[in-house]
Amino acid sequence: MSESRTVTAAMLIIGNEILSGRTVDANLPYLATKLNDQGVQLAEARVVADIEDEIVDAVKALSAKHDYVFTTGGIGPTHDDITASCIAKAFERPFERHPEAARILEDFYGDRVNPARMSMADMPRGVTLIDNPVSRAPGFRIENVFVMAGVPKIMQAMLDAILPTLEGGTPVQSVTVTVYRPESELAPILQVILDAVSGVDIGSYPFMRMDKPGTSIVFRSTDAAALTRARDQLVAKLTSDGTDFEA
Amino acid sequence: MSESRTVTAAMLIIGNEILSGRTVDANLPYLATKLNDQGVQLAEARVVADIEDEIVDAVKALSAKHDYVFTTGGIGPTHDDITASCIAKAFERPFERHPEAARILEDFYGDRVNPARMSMADMPRGVTLIDNPVSRAPGFRIENVFVMAGVPKIMQAMLDAILPTLEGGTPVQSVTVTVYRPESELAPILQVILDAVSGVDIGSYPFMRMDKPGTSIVFRSTDAAALTRARDQLVAKLTSDGTDFEA
Repeated sequence: MSESRTVTAAMLIIGNEILSGRTVDANLPYLATKLNDQGVQLAEARVVADIEDEIVDAVKALSAKHDYVFTTGGIGPTHDDITASCIAKAFERPFERHPEAARILEDFYGDRVNPARMSMADMPRGVTLIDNPVSRAPGFRIENVFVMAGVPKIMQAMLDAILPTLEGGTPVQSVTVTVYRPESELAPILQVILDAVSGVDIGSYPFMRMDKPGTSIVFRSTDAAALTRARDQLVAKLTSDGTDFEA
Repeated sequence: MSESRTVTAAMLIIGNEILSGRTVDANLPYLATKLNDQGVQLAEARVVADIEDEIVDAVKALSAKHDYVFTTGGIGPTHDDITASCIAKAFERPFERHPEAARILEDFYGDRVNPARMSMADMPRGVTLIDNPVSRAPGFRIENVFVMAGVPKIMQAMLDAILPTLEGGTPVQSVTVTVYRPESELAPILQVILDAVSGVDIGSYPFMRMDKPGTSIVFRSTDAAALTRARDQLVAKLTSDGTDFEA
C-alpha cells in the first residue's frame, strides 16, 4: 500500500442566473479537472442565489469542512455583485477599498474610471489578490477561500494563477473500461472486485450505442498499483466470459 | 400590488462522475426552467459524492428548508447507486422491496431479470412511484422529495410525470433589455430603478459582441405590472441618453 494524502475542495457557484436556468455553468467540470491534476479532489459543490445570508452560510460551512473553497460569480460592478462583502461578513473582517486593487483599476480604466468600476476594489481586509489578465479586476484569496469571476475565460485565467499555490495531495488517477453489456449484468463482477481490491473507487455509467446498452466502468484511485489490479481483474473476467470490451 | 406566493425548490445532484468533471450536468437548467413555468423557484442546488452521510445530510437540510427537493442520480443497479437507501435513512423509514416497482421490473425484464436489476425496486417504505417510460425502473416521491434518474432523457420523462402534481406559486416572469454599453456605466441607473420599483429582481450580465462590451439586463418578478414599470424606466433613461439598446 502506498501512503496517500487526501486534499479536498468545495466549489460555491454564486448567481441567480444559474438557478433560473438562463446561464449554464461551465466552470465546475473545468475546475474539477484542473484541481485533480494538482492532487486536490472536488468533494462537493453548491449553487446559491445572490442573497447575503445564503452566501455567508455556505462560505462558512464549506470553508470549515474542506481544505480549499473556490467561489465563482458575483464580483462585478453592479448591485447584484455582493460576493466580496458577503465573504467579509463570513470571516468577520472589515470591508474596505484594497489599495493595490484600486491602483490596478485606475491604471486600467484611466479617464473611464467610475464609482461602479472602483467598487470592484472593495474587499475584505487582508486578502491576497488573484491576477486577472483578461479584464484586470482582481479576484482574491482569504484564508482557504479563493474568490473568482464567473465568466469562464476570466475564471480560467485566475485559476492558472492559483493552481501553483495549492498544496495538493496524491492525485487521483483513473482508467476506463468500456464494456458492451448492460450495467446490471456487470454488478456482481464489480462487487467481487470491490471486495478484493481496497482503495479503488469504481464508477459504473450506462450508455446506449447503436441501440445496444453498454457500460463505462471507471476505476479511480490515488494508488496506481491498486488501480492496475482492479482493472486487470475486470479484464480477466470479461475475457474469460467472452464479453466484448475495450480497455 | 398583486398578492404573490413564493414556492421554492432545491436540487440535489448525486454522483462522483459530476464532481470528477467526467460528466457535465445538464439537468439543472432544464429543471430550473420547467419548475419556473410551474411557479416553483429553484432556490439552491448541491452536488454531492456517492457517500452515504453526505447524501443523508443534504436531503435532510434541503427537505427542511424548501417546499420541494429534486434529486438526480444514483438509482441504477450497481454498487455506486445508493440514493434510495440514503433517502430511507434520511426519513428513518425501512428500506425494502416495493411490490409495484418489483412487478414493473419483472414484467419489463422477463427472463432477463437478475438481482441487480431487481435491486432498483428497493425503496423506503411508503413512497409513491414516479413513472419511467424510458427504461421502466421507477423513481419515487417521499414527503417533499422527488427521486429521479440522472440520465437526462429519463430525468426529463420523470419530471413530465411530476410537474402536474406540484402546487406552484405565482410564476416568475422575466424581460430582458440588451444594452450596448458596459455594465459599470449602467450601475447607477439600475440602482435608481431598484430604489423606485419594489418586488423586481434585476440581473446584470456583461457580454462582448464584436469586441464591444454590452450588458443584458434581466428583470424578474412575479408582479407583471412592476416588471413593466421597471423595464419602461430603463428604456426611457436609455432613450433620453441616446444609448443603443434592444428591448
